[in-house]
Amino acid sequence: MENINVVFGKRVKELRNQIKISQEKFANEIGIDRTYMTDIENGKRNVSLFIIEKIAKGFEMCLSDLLKGL
Amino acid sequence: MENINVVFGKRVKELRNQIKISQEKFANEIGIDRTYMTDIENGKRNVSLFIIEKIAKGFEMCLSDLLKGL
Repeated sequence: MENINVVFGKRVKELRNQIKISQEKFANEIGIDRTYMTDIENGKRNVSLFIIEKIAKGFEMCLSDLLKGL
Repeated sequence: MENINVVFGKRVKELRNQIKISQEKFANEIGIDRTYMTDIENGKRNVSLFIIEKIAKGFEMCLSDLLKGL
């Protein structure tokens, strides 16, 4: 089974592309560094619940919906 | 709004009590240290996605269900 952080990164990228927003703009909006955002989408970070919450808020989603299907 | 890790800790404690399993037994089953489990339930840890996944598996739940309502 794929590493959960890789799966999560793909999910974030897919959602971000759906709303047609750049990595840089999304990272700025939710208050994290762009390079960190790049690492998250590439599954290179073991993201914390704080970061997951920031991302969920950025997509105006609850945590449960953000992690649906993972 | 309450710190997301405090809210998550309460959720884990509630679920663990529902299945009537001790902190020690649950921590052993999912492969984390008991004191770490205590800290998680008390909201003292900024849990990672890896740990969240271990906990979800321990409850035989998907991540989305574990985080429902947070």
